[in-house]
Amino acid sequence: MVIKYPNGKVYAAQTPAPSSSPSTKKTPKKDVSFSNRGKTLEDELNEANDYYLAHKLAVIHKKPVPLQIVKVEYPSRSAAVVREAYFRTPSTTDYNGVWQSRYIDFEAKETENKTSFPLKNIHPHQVAHMQAVADQGGTTFFIVRFSKLNRYFLMPLPVLQDAWQSMHNGGRKSIPLATFEQHCYEMTLGYYPRLDYLKAVEHFYTS
Amino acid sequence: MVIKYPNGKVYAAQTPAPSSSPSTKKTPKKDVSFSNRGKTLEDELNEANDYYLAHKLAVIHKKPVPLQIVKVEYPSRSAAVVREAYFRTPSTTDYNGVWQSRYIDFEAKETENKTSFPLKNIHPHQVAHMQAVADQGGTTFFIVRFSKLNRYFLMPLPVLQDAWQSMHNGGRKSIPLATFEQHCYEMTLGYYPRLDYLKAVEHFYTS
Repeated sequence: MVIKYPNGKVYAAQTPAPSSSPSTKKTPKKDVSFSNRGKTLEDELNEANDYYLAHKLAVIHKKPVPLQIVKVEYPSRSAAVVREAYFRTPSTTDYNGVWQSRYIDFEAKETENKTSFPLKNIHPHQVAHMQAVADQGGTTFFIVRFSKLNRYFLMPLPVLQDAWQSMHNGGRKSIPLATFEQHCYEMTLGYYPRLDYLKAVEHFYTS
Repeated sequence: MVIKYPNGKVYAAQTPAPSSSPSTKKTPKKDVSFSNRGKTLEDELNEANDYYLAHKLAVIHKKPVPLQIVKVEYPSRSAAVVREAYFRTPSTTDYNGVWQSRYIDFEAKETENKTSFPLKNIHPHQVAHMQAVADQGGTTFFIVRFSKLNRYFLMPLPVLQDAWQSMHNGGRKSIPLATFEQHCYEMTLGYYPRLDYLKAVEHFYTS
């Protein structure tokens, strides 16, 4: 099943989604050879994090979805069940943990847009959180996937902040792809884990 | 409202609890002078974390409660509402973040017991998680409150692991208070934030 968040993000439940019925099946696209077709960025990051954990390379987890719980029932002989809860706006980023003694904290976003990354995908308090993390000596960044282009970038916080500031001064509401190409670090997909993003972090922050 | 977890922990919702009715009001106890009467350990840690964030001393947050979401409704003109969800066992600790470039990761537990801390409060995967964090150079520990005694301890991971190992070899299923007094760091309450636990972390890990 797929749950849409108020902010437009998609929640992938932990039960496998039923395969799409024939009537809605899409014609295979040109990029059929991409092995990650259909995988969300979250899937790819989870795979990478599982790999890092199993190989003792890092301990990085996605945070649970923040919910305001209003009503819980306690059926006898069964697990407690939440009957009313609301999605809350996250006050931090989605992913954090530790890698080689460094605190790692990042937000992952994907866009269907082919030419720019819309800034409406980012919450103001997430930017404030990331600045606070940077001030404490943490390593913080965005991972942005242009889904239609199959391109992945590690975007350092200052690049986002420049665009953010510009938007609030009446500038454009998105970051053009060219900015990613010039000021961010492009990640190439590997075999396993496909999205070895810590390799990019290593290149960007420690070299 | 108060929500009890399957593991016996209490979830404090973000709406203020209604004051207890006269019929259920308890007779004031001897420790009426304690200003933290009625505050949970979670309240105290949230207060400390808010203070650290506001004063740019650290960025540490409690993770949201992990829920398995099964059913969501989308009433027209209203926010999406979760109608069926189940509590999942957390695979990590409750609190993490960054302080002076260090990755901080801890679990907070309180017990009503006056003479020992029952090990059933700790999940095996939490211990595994904390070991992985320690292996990556993170700073990881427990904060244990003996509620009836109003005593607070910072328990380093090795102390828990010794007791854990001993239990699995047929030893006792709890850690006696004397072990806390001898091998842990006792925290004293201050004015604001009342539970300045990073002071204890600083003493224990950097001196």
